Amino acid sequence: MAIRLGPNQYGKAENRVVRVYRDTPRHELRDLNVSTSLRGRFEDAHVSGDQKDVLPTDTQKNTAFAFAKERGVGAIEDYALALGRHFVNVSPAIQGARVEVEEYPWERIGDHSFVRSGGGVRTTVVEVGDEGATVVSGIKDLVVMNTTDSEFRGFLRDEYTTLEDSYDRILATSLVATWEYADVEADWDTLFASIKRICLERFAGIHSLALQQTLYGMGKAVLEAHDEVRHISFKAPNKHHFLVDLSPFGVENNGEVFIAADRPYGLIEASVVRD
Amino acid sequence: MAIRLGPNQYGKAENRVVRVYRDTPRHELRDLNVSTSLRGRFEDAHVSGDQKDVLPTDTQKNTAFAFAKERGVGAIEDYALALGRHFVNVSPAIQGARVEVEEYPWERIGDHSFVRSGGGVRTTVVEVGDEGATVVSGIKDLVVMNTTDSEFRGFLRDEYTTLEDSYDRILATSLVATWEYADVEADWDTLFASIKRICLERFAGIHSLALQQTLYGMGKAVLEAHDEVRHISFKAPNKHHFLVDLSPFGVENNGEVFIAADRPYGLIEASVVRD
Amino acid sequence: MAIRLGPNQYGKAENRVVRVYRDTPRHELRDLNVSTSLRGRFEDAHVSGDQKDVLPTDTQKNTAFAFAKERGVGAIEDYALALGRHFVNVSPAIQGARVEVEEYPWERIGDHSFVRSGGGVRTTVVEVGDEGATVVSGIKDLVVMNTTDSEFRGFLRDEYTTLEDSYDRILATSLVATWEYADVEADWDTLFASIKRICLERFAGIHSLALQQTLYGMGKAVLEAHDEVRHISFKAPNKHHFLVDLSPFGVENNGEVFIAADRPYGLIEASVVRD
Amino acid sequence: MAIRLGPNQYGKAENRVVRVYRDTPRHELRDLNVSTSLRGRFEDAHVSGDQKDVLPTDTQKNTAFAFAKERGVGAIEDYALALGRHFVNVSPAIQGARVEVEEYPWERIGDHSFVRSGGGVRTTVVEVGDEGATVVSGIKDLVVMNTTDSEFRGFLRDEYTTLEDSYDRILATSLVATWEYADVEADWDTLFASIKRICLERFAGIHSLALQQTLYGMGKAVLEAHDEVRHISFKAPNKHHFLVDLSPFGVENNGEVFIAADRPYGLIEASVVRD
Repeated sequence: MAIRLGPNQYGKAENRVVRVYRDTPRHELRDLNVSTSLRGRFEDAHVSGDQKDVLPTDTQKNTAFAFAKERGVGAIEDYALALGRHFVNVSPAIQGARVEVEEYPWERIGDHSFVRSGGGVRTTVVEVGDEGATVVSGIKDLVVMNTTDSEFRGFLRDEYTTLEDSYDRILATSLVATWEYADVEADWDTLFASIKRICLERFAGIHSLALQQTLYGMGKAVLEAHDEVRHISFKAPNKHHFLVDLSPFGVENNGEVFIAADRPYGLIEASVVRD
Repeated sequence: MAIRLGPNQYGKAENRVVRVYRDTPRHELRDLNVSTSLRGRFEDAHVSGDQKDVLPTDTQKNTAFAFAKERGVGAIEDYALALGRHFVNVSPAIQGARVEVEEYPWERIGDHSFVRSGGGVRTTVVEVGDEGATVVSGIKDLVVMNTTDSEFRGFLRDEYTTLEDSYDRILATSLVATWEYADVEADWDTLFASIKRICLERFAGIHSLALQQTLYGMGKAVLEAHDEVRHISFKAPNKHHFLVDLSPFGVENNGEVFIAADRPYGLIEASVVRD
Repeated sequence: MAIRLGPNQYGKAENRVVRVYRDTPRHELRDLNVSTSLRGRFEDAHVSGDQKDVLPTDTQKNTAFAFAKERGVGAIEDYALALGRHFVNVSPAIQGARVEVEEYPWERIGDHSFVRSGGGVRTTVVEVGDEGATVVSGIKDLVVMNTTDSEFRGFLRDEYTTLEDSYDRILATSLVATWEYADVEADWDTLFASIKRICLERFAGIHSLALQQTLYGMGKAVLEAHDEVRHISFKAPNKHHFLVDLSPFGVENNGEVFIAADRPYGLIEASVVRD
Repeated sequence: MAIRLGPNQYGKAENRVVRVYRDTPRHELRDLNVSTSLRGRFEDAHVSGDQKDVLPTDTQKNTAFAFAKERGVGAIEDYALALGRHFVNVSPAIQGARVEVEEYPWERIGDHSFVRSGGGVRTTVVEVGDEGATVVSGIKDLVVMNTTDSEFRGFLRDEYTTLEDSYDRILATSLVATWEYADVEADWDTLFASIKRICLERFAGIHSLALQQTLYGMGKAVLEAHDEVRHISFKAPNKHHFLVDLSPFGVENNGEVFIAADRPYGLIEASVVRD
């Protein structure tokens, strides 16, 4: 039974590309973290050490920065598609490119002054190959909390179950959502804003019987509103907020004082798809 | 020459106290990280292991949570003062208490729904001792950037200097500011909002010849506006954004494409005081 | 086109299970980070909020701790298999379990005293389902460096390539290796020690023409030595160490002074398989 | 009441200096994190923006790397002293220099191959000023655990105390120790090794009635053994390992299964001095 190279890819991770538009006194800013990787016929590089087909990760880095100027950075999806399409055309040995981009949010405080804001980091992962391209965009680090309208009860019990039914608890998570677009051309910025808005609106609006139900409701609402989205996935740590027992001190605690725990945490992953 | 115990303190760090006010359908939220520590006559605990004067860190934790309900959490300065004053009254052996509080910002998205926002974490450090109390409040993780109006030139040169004068660069930092209040009673929330606003306004408004100058300008403006502030200190990493050389690709880069570097970073520390 | 639940799983992540064996004065210690997740028929939990088929993540946590005592913690693979097999038997709705375990290394400094050591964190991921079980073990955070015998040259060049051939550079990485075992019973501890030893020996022994070649050589050696391993995968950040230009100070730098960079970094992923 | 500049300093933080000695086939490696900062007459830089007295942080970085070659890196104390003494001689405006160095431990696996090891990071902070120099060295990230011989009982109780006496618990910490040397010349490497050995030996050897007592015992032993040490300070998070209640499952837990908690944690700080 022979031993051989299996799946492989390589690239440059976490290029911190900052693009300033300064054509007018009112500057614009796009602050990105760009990772690229290539797949293809790289057996020689691995087996004999011959690098003739390997476009250096340093070149990938250069390209990410050069494109920020040459092609510009509008929506991160367009920037990533441009990069990915470029790479697969460099050499026949390169058969696929994956470009990941994170965009950090900034709020304007002056014509050329900004403060980092919260509300999550926008993401996209673009894959370009022989069959065309796919665009999976998303948001991460979107930390949200409901202080009521969350229950968890009627669950399966076995001999290791000690949890009691809860009729009113805090529901908090640091949401990661990713969705695949049906097409490679779209009004990306508008779609992102709308999907984020729907997720927040549903998170706030659903009376939750479980984090699973909240995620499903969010995903369903996104798919109903946007035919442009093929499917959506969520990864949501259940950031536990435990009610603190204040009875030893003669004090009632009706959902008012909680300890936010770090680990362990629930981890709920769910996707919503079209049939 | 005898060997003996020197300065010492002990406490419970990073109690994640979350306080919900739910008296009306529109909930309020205060999300805190509370650390307490005590100073006093604790020789026996160290030398012979006798713990009779040691209030357990577990008790300090309990107190932090109980006070969130019993005394409530308004401005973090008042909450910290209440905790500190309590601890020094528990026992004559306890001679001083230090209470540190961080408050994480949340933005409302519904009556009982919130999303974590940016714009920095509010802080306070309260010391209570025989001589009374001091309140040093501040803000941290306030990430700001100017995309122009920043220079650095005319500096001292020696045989290891290779840096060239810069007439237009990015200035970015993750600001930590701390200021001591002159009194232990004040309208803390209003003062915090005003000081933060002044810092942002000055950061955006000063044409900077060095990060040092920007910090001094911010501090001066705060002291001029607020007699309530004794002095103010800044700790500001110079988050370097290096202009990327695109000339090998025949592309000009007039302050448009930067690489954000991680390490090393400049670290500028300055305080502004009253004479 | 209907909207429905897609792939999903849920569980409790990062249970920090510490197991002490104290049957003799010479204690033994196993220090674990355990994450479990379940797959199955959980449509109701998502769509209607009915939790009747959901074994709480809290119960999963309890089970992880209880098993540490009831079944004990020997090799992490056996512990993970026991947990996974238990979960799929709790209810017909639970169709698959995934158990991830990390084990932190400690070095003995006394009969009941230990110091955390380096040399990587041992890992395993066990999947139990209808078809039986799979065991994918590995090591992570194994930080290694060669100070010579590493080249990178003769690579593909395009218009964005500025990198020059290197005939002698530092090669450093924080290795993540994962390998699938052919069976679910084995002498896990011995195999782990041998595979780790082979990886380190090959890393040190191979004159590297690229990190890809080093990874392939390590994987090939593991597969040749161990029929018990089906295939092995590596994820290796190329932790760049850039030679510092000291010529402005009249000093030569023949591979003696480097700056260790954080980001961006090369990221090389490769697997070695059997045909 | 005039407003003026108060205490200030500036420098370059976290220069990752890697020095390879390759004069023989058996290479030596010193892997450092170097931070420098300067104090002096820098009013103009802050108030008017005139940088004529400011040695750029970029120059400080260059110097740290150049010295690694020109002066070499032996013991980090000597390297830091050389850097600090250099900076205060650059210009009369520079009145003091602070140089911090961390050294990461590596274990040899070949003539020019190394693996990162555990057992703590060696540190030094050197201050050079008009009055001469001080050297405060130490160790950090030294994670240690005793699985028995640790108690905590007989402590002060108040109305918020719920903790029960413990006669046998886990004692674990991530130790930070710093000690001031009496002189600026010494056999630094030998002293460091001895002090670390004493700390570990005492941690393992003391039957602990409190973490305070353990720290004091460690410090006393170091001062007794080494006249070269003026005083020693410890900062030790009490990394709580809580006994898991397995009684709901009919299982006894006699100090065998623990959950390692993250936050909150005790934080014990103590110093041992000479009279």
